[in-house]
Amino acid sequence: MSHFWINDKQVFFEDEGYGTPIVLLNGIMMSTRSWAPFVESFKANNRLIRVDFFDQGQSTKLIGQNYTHQIQVDLLKSLFDHLKLEKASIVGISYGGEIAIQFALQHKNLVDRLVLFNTAAYTNPWLKDIGRAWIAAGKTRNGEAYYNTAIPVIYSPKFYEEQQVWMKNRKQVLVPVFSNPEFLDQMERLTLSSESYDVKDIIHEIEAETLIVSAEEDYLTPVDNQAYVAKRIPKSHWVKIPGAGHASMYEKPLLFTTLCLGFINAKDTHYHI
Amino acid sequence: MSHFWINDKQVFFEDEGYGTPIVLLNGIMMSTRSWAPFVESFKANNRLIRVDFFDQGQSTKLIGQNYTHQIQVDLLKSLFDHLKLEKASIVGISYGGEIAIQFALQHKNLVDRLVLFNTAAYTNPWLKDIGRAWIAAGKTRNGEAYYNTAIPVIYSPKFYEEQQVWMKNRKQVLVPVFSNPEFLDQMERLTLSSESYDVKDIIHEIEAETLIVSAEEDYLTPVDNQAYVAKRIPKSHWVKIPGAGHASMYEKPLLFTTLCLGFINAKDTHYHI
Amino acid sequence: MSHFWINDKQVFFEDEGYGTPIVLLNGIMMSTRSWAPFVESFKANNRLIRVDFFDQGQSTKLIGQNYTHQIQVDLLKSLFDHLKLEKASIVGISYGGEIAIQFALQHKNLVDRLVLFNTAAYTNPWLKDIGRAWIAAGKTRNGEAYYNTAIPVIYSPKFYEEQQVWMKNRKQVLVPVFSNPEFLDQMERLTLSSESYDVKDIIHEIEAETLIVSAEEDYLTPVDNQAYVAKRIPKSHWVKIPGAGHASMYEKPLLFTTLCLGFINAKDTHYHI
Amino acid sequence: MSHFWINDKQVFFEDEGYGTPIVLLNGIMMSTRSWAPFVESFKANNRLIRVDFFDQGQSTKLIGQNYTHQIQVDLLKSLFDHLKLEKASIVGISYGGEIAIQFALQHKNLVDRLVLFNTAAYTNPWLKDIGRAWIAAGKTRNGEAYYNTAIPVIYSPKFYEEQQVWMKNRKQVLVPVFSNPEFLDQMERLTLSSESYDVKDIIHEIEAETLIVSAEEDYLTPVDNQAYVAKRIPKSHWVKIPGAGHASMYEKPLLFTTLCLGFINAKDTHYHI
Repeated sequence: MSHFWINDKQVFFEDEGYGTPIVLLNGIMMSTRSWAPFVESFKANNRLIRVDFFDQGQSTKLIGQNYTHQIQVDLLKSLFDHLKLEKASIVGISYGGEIAIQFALQHKNLVDRLVLFNTAAYTNPWLKDIGRAWIAAGKTRNGEAYYNTAIPVIYSPKFYEEQQVWMKNRKQVLVPVFSNPEFLDQMERLTLSSESYDVKDIIHEIEAETLIVSAEEDYLTPVDNQAYVAKRIPKSHWVKIPGAGHASMYEKPLLFTTLCLGFINAKDTHYHI
Repeated sequence: MSHFWINDKQVFFEDEGYGTPIVLLNGIMMSTRSWAPFVESFKANNRLIRVDFFDQGQSTKLIGQNYTHQIQVDLLKSLFDHLKLEKASIVGISYGGEIAIQFALQHKNLVDRLVLFNTAAYTNPWLKDIGRAWIAAGKTRNGEAYYNTAIPVIYSPKFYEEQQVWMKNRKQVLVPVFSNPEFLDQMERLTLSSESYDVKDIIHEIEAETLIVSAEEDYLTPVDNQAYVAKRIPKSHWVKIPGAGHASMYEKPLLFTTLCLGFINAKDTHYHI
Repeated sequence: MSHFWINDKQVFFEDEGYGTPIVLLNGIMMSTRSWAPFVESFKANNRLIRVDFFDQGQSTKLIGQNYTHQIQVDLLKSLFDHLKLEKASIVGISYGGEIAIQFALQHKNLVDRLVLFNTAAYTNPWLKDIGRAWIAAGKTRNGEAYYNTAIPVIYSPKFYEEQQVWMKNRKQVLVPVFSNPEFLDQMERLTLSSESYDVKDIIHEIEAETLIVSAEEDYLTPVDNQAYVAKRIPKSHWVKIPGAGHASMYEKPLLFTTLCLGFINAKDTHYHI
Repeated sequence: MSHFWINDKQVFFEDEGYGTPIVLLNGIMMSTRSWAPFVESFKANNRLIRVDFFDQGQSTKLIGQNYTHQIQVDLLKSLFDHLKLEKASIVGISYGGEIAIQFALQHKNLVDRLVLFNTAAYTNPWLKDIGRAWIAAGKTRNGEAYYNTAIPVIYSPKFYEEQQVWMKNRKQVLVPVFSNPEFLDQMERLTLSSESYDVKDIIHEIEAETLIVSAEEDYLTPVDNQAYVAKRIPKSHWVKIPGAGHASMYEKPLLFTTLCLGFINAKDTHYHI
């Protein structure tokens, strides 16, 4: 684990492997460590860079601050600068996908290919109010209440039911985390930082070759959201994963690897058929 | 509004119009009054019977009691007895659909045709935990927290966004209700009464001609649930409403009327094509 | 069976029952007789009017003529005039739905409610070429070739497989018909009359309350076509039938009745929810 | 182009590149040459092996013979023997996917990973009759009739409409081919060889890690077919491509490359999440 400073704030990241660089951006509840199961596959033929956004993992907590996504977009730019990355492909899921989109809009020349899992073009009023429910659950400081509010909805009902052992382990790990006021405050700030997110009128300016992935049982950013993104990004390519929910990379890890690496490492993007 | 007694408990109901009788069963948060917009259409050519389940509307509140769906199935049977109904068609949505299914299984001869909107065959672990989140939100006694936890998820994101005036009115009406400890306790008991619901292994015994309606953006009892129900009920007929959420009759009221009355009043159920 | 004359051409129709009038418009291969299984249900509470378009059933064959849909729209207007119908609801499937749309655009004051099954807003190049394949199959004068070209595609694969007895009967009836040069020439003219159909830029002018029905396994006018129609007609209401193909009323006859009669006979079209 | 002999029959193949071997199996109308646009991408990091089945491309034509898929499965086994391939991943589309499935069932130890695009588990009566329509169109020896019968249905309506230049070129190339009696006879034999295809009761015996790809507008082997395959193959992974038809690799070439290479080259197939 390495780090660098942006003024008085620390940013933690991991930089492993060799080859075409891939920057992997976390969902809202995640950290660099959440990607551990994927590291071997991703670094097999690529340079893999992971990073904790502010209020995630080991990066600085922004206690008492209000901020928007822009602070994370700027963090990402600082990471590119720090690593002297001239160009990299970016993979983002959910919150990470939203930061990826904004980075691709603001720093067109730095982005090679873009992969967006379970990502929307704006925080609609419906999702905003769901976020408010998460915040209210956080204020109870009751880990189980937070778990039941935020976790079922990010899995498909079928996975949640069939993977009971896995879900039970998950609950044992998460309830203590969700009982930690510091973590809940981080989650509240991250959630609030998404409320103003809205690129629906500029998203067509993305120039990168982009893979968009929907999960058919994503009930936070349902398929319609990606239909919108896929329709507006000029060089977009869209696939759907049946039977998966919002945390699609945990439900279908081999498809996550397949889609990210297959798309980023494809030699040709245009075909004379 | 009429009522009758089951021992020391009161059951309120409305009985209007003439023609083939239709019993309309409420979703969990509803009461007989929730159907007001539909009454004129339904009683135009049919006898329309609405009823408050226990812990709904004006029927008796079961303070301090644990119960299952069976108490509501029995309430419905008492209503049939009270009205001397020999046979009626039943329409249920969500909670009401679940009671309708169980009634149809237990009282085959009393049920003419069955219409199930947004209904599942059992409460899976995923939905159970979502119910637990509602209960936890109720315990905060914070009306807005309960609203944000329970309301967005029952509408489609598009309706929630486009019908902002309607949703704002809805919020003004509901937040005070959701701040009422008595109502929140009723909701908790109703929610708990659903946890043990499971007819997945006997639902194929339903003999009634049955219309099953899915809403494509139902994120509480998603389409897969109705696929299961439609596959197992022998005389089933299945339609989907695009662009609607769990509270489908509010998002698509004319389709609700069309489907209920069209199905129940159809002269022939079999066609020699 | 009654008839009237338009100049030297005869139009055959059936007019039965009492109540709100419904005009039922045939698909391309159909005639008034094709609706026989539905007549009892439709005339139970409504006046039901069926009609053979030119080159269908007993209406005049337009041997050697090129024509467009307009000739059928005008036939329908003559029927309204002949019956002194001031207003009627119209149900159309496929070809009949296309005529219904054009009639609703040209004679707004004559149309009460509109029901469109398996209907598109224009004949796209793909469907045009499929029509050309039908015509080529017709020119072989080989009934079985025509059957295999035109029939499987109008059913869902599942229905085609599971209803083998029904399909076998259907084949025994149809192969002789499809071996009749006169019928094949009628089909060729009807098919050609659809090639120029295109209301995609004016369909939003339809004022009638409109029910649009898609069949999820319609492989001639797939669901996307009705998504377009539903999006553009202002007062549109859209449902999908899972597991049905293009000839949806034969695969799901009770749903056909339910949707048509439920929608047309609904007392209220607006609901103050 | 290399070749080898099986008794008196020649089999032509291409063997290029280095790395994990991939055998690419043609759809019914294709030949090794049809994959030309993909060769650079596929051989960038893999050994790519293409082959003409009997009655395809330059392999021997089986004039006057009746045969089943088994002859092609055996051809593939001979290719493995000829190349001394101990294990390879296999990609097949449609007809090629069917041969791939049967090869994977008969030669479990020779198959590494399996990728199935637009593939079914059996030829249902519906598809069989569609094949009969193709054969009847072939017997007319009319290239345009064959084109209109067999080509539109393998593309999505949208692609067919929007890629008019590409489709026009395609038509100019294909109509002469479809006017060639020798080619039409090959197509007839290949089509007939599929009629008896049915692995629906043994497909669960496939042991290979398998990627299944559906195209949402595939109207020859619609999504339900792959749902069946995905449900029964134990180690299956399923994705859908929105907006693509049966010839999905031509409509979405970058997704074809992404999915094939991403899946076959993924280091891990199991993830400890």
